[in-house]
Amino acid sequence: MSDPDANIAAAVERQLALFLERATEPVRDVGPFGEAIDALSRFMLGGGKRLRPTFAWWGWRGAGGPATGDEAAGALQAVSALELLQACALVHDDLIDASDSRRGADTVHVAFAKRHAERGWLGDPERFGLAASVLVGDVALAWAEDMYATAPLPATALAAARPFWQAMRTEVLAGQYLDVHTQAVGDSSPEAAMRVNELKTAAYTVVRPLQLGAALAGADDELLAVLRRFGHDIGVAFQLRDDLLGVFGDPAVTGKPAGDDLREGKRTLLLALGLERARESGRDAEERAIAAAVDDAWLSDARLDAARDALRAVGAVSAVEQRIGEMTEAALAALRETSLAEPARDELVKLAHAATKRSA
Amino acid sequence: MSDPDANIAAAVERQLALFLERATEPVRDVGPFGEAIDALSRFMLGGGKRLRPTFAWWGWRGAGGPATGDEAAGALQAVSALELLQACALVHDDLIDASDSRRGADTVHVAFAKRHAERGWLGDPERFGLAASVLVGDVALAWAEDMYATAPLPATALAAARPFWQAMRTEVLAGQYLDVHTQAVGDSSPEAAMRVNELKTAAYTVVRPLQLGAALAGADDELLAVLRRFGHDIGVAFQLRDDLLGVFGDPAVTGKPAGDDLREGKRTLLLALGLERARESGRDAEERAIAAAVDDAWLSDARLDAARDALRAVGAVSAVEQRIGEMTEAALAALRETSLAEPARDELVKLAHAATKRSA
Repeated sequence: MSDPDANIAAAVERQLALFLERATEPVRDVGPFGEAIDALSRFMLGGGKRLRPTFAWWGWRGAGGPATGDEAAGALQAVSALELLQACALVHDDLIDASDSRRGADTVHVAFAKRHAERGWLGDPERFGLAASVLVGDVALAWAEDMYATAPLPATALAAARPFWQAMRTEVLAGQYLDVHTQAVGDSSPEAAMRVNELKTAAYTVVRPLQLGAALAGADDELLAVLRRFGHDIGVAFQLRDDLLGVFGDPAVTGKPAGDDLREGKRTLLLALGLERARESGRDAEERAIAAAVDDAWLSDARLDAARDALRAVGAVSAVEQRIGEMTEAALAALRETSLAEPARDELVKLAHAATKRSA
Repeated sequence: MSDPDANIAAAVERQLALFLERATEPVRDVGPFGEAIDALSRFMLGGGKRLRPTFAWWGWRGAGGPATGDEAAGALQAVSALELLQACALVHDDLIDASDSRRGADTVHVAFAKRHAERGWLGDPERFGLAASVLVGDVALAWAEDMYATAPLPATALAAARPFWQAMRTEVLAGQYLDVHTQAVGDSSPEAAMRVNELKTAAYTVVRPLQLGAALAGADDELLAVLRRFGHDIGVAFQLRDDLLGVFGDPAVTGKPAGDDLREGKRTLLLALGLERARESGRDAEERAIAAAVDDAWLSDARLDAARDALRAVGAVSAVEQRIGEMTEAALAALRETSLAEPARDELVKLAHAATKRSA
């Protein structure tokens, strides 16, 4: 094992490749199921920022876990399992949101629907795509657990981290349900958007991974509490950056169509602030321009540009940028209070900047 | 704790109610998510034969696990987790199969779609039903794991049973994918139907639960192998009985519409043998009558009766009945070879008869 401190993403990918090979072995004789497993493997190994295992790894290191040796290998397997969890979340979210592409490729339900259509199979291609993507996501969720629970670590370490593992899985599902519900009831308040951010991104992407890694290394309650505060603020800032990219991002860099969040009617804080500010200042033209773009499946470039201009004009973009800056500062201040071991503290500072200033 | 030997289903239901209360606590403040949890609770506690925990319990008892005391309570929690796994499988299967009702009530995706429509929410009710049922199933799968992994048993016992827990989850998903795939490619061979039976029912419903329970109690390889043979034969026989009920069952007893398996185009051994025998004996009228009923969403009583008569006439029904009898006999013979502790052996004999001679 090379040093995961130097390239945690690469170390995670090696773990995933090894695990997927082991997990696939017992079902290799179930012919067609191989297609589903292949889809999962391609999805898993075909990209992604490995953000959750990265936070979890630095949680482990920051709480004093070693960088190499048997224990480190065990921790690496446990934190890599977060990527399988994330695969389930993405595959099922893409189905729920009816998204066509991810990371520049067809989403899983679209890929299986196309395969069905190309081969002239019986029944409705879309229903086949639905079935396949539900099951591929389920396999990812089940295997996430297998990968975590069989990590070669003392049972006491896995048990200490399990509350965070459990909370993370329930919270991301609660956040996703809340997201779908918020869109259905048309709740466009900034409060609703923030609650979804806290569950779907802050807790799931940063707080719980950090705590999980730290708990594996035996962190005390004080350190776990500081990681919660740091993680919350960085996680929300990360999501707000994501929201800006969802409207203003370059498709060539993000791998998603321009303005996809608007097209899908995603209830972001950016959108909520845009509508609220336009309304409160009586700027009807801007309010209409923003509202018209939301949920418009055939959103034209002209309408997208109009919505972008309106979001800037009412100050929603600068308000979100300001919030990102404040939360990043607060997160970094929390970090300075702790006795986090180096190089974890330095790396978390770098991650905080990278996650909140990125372009993809 | 009353004696679970006397009423294992009731003991499992108590465990589930307690666990659901504990698991819900941390997300009680995520308002709307309560709707999803309530749906899961109603689904979990609103019926079901508790077949998998029952087999697992008798595996535990047969391998020498005690009926009462702390260890028994731990085993009871672990085996009850199988019902949460089953909830995921059913909720997702109902979505995949577009089934409207289960146990005489709306399926989860239908119930949420109706709620959406009744409240006049935004967007498409069906898409909301899809989203909610994907997430409710995911919660069930995640919580199944939480319930299993936190069972108060020695870590060595949980680790000994984990390979069976893992195999069970992968196999049921593989079986479900194979099922969907078999229908899509129109593979109506008896071999394909049997492979699905082996994965979806024999392994998942009987073999793995039995082995899991036995392994929790420290069963040796010999006992685990006998349980595999018994479980395979009883499991397939159970599925074949289910297939007969899916075509000939009384809706008032099964809780599903008459002839639902035909309507849904389910590729059962009964159907495969019916078509194969009609073809091989040149009985064109019977072949047409059977084929016409398959996948007919608007299947009339007259057409259903014609398909039933044809399945009987070509001998498919008696062939399936004969297979059920033979496999039940083989299963019982396997059981006689073991040193299974009483009352487990007696109870498994009773279960073997009940599962293969039932009417619902």
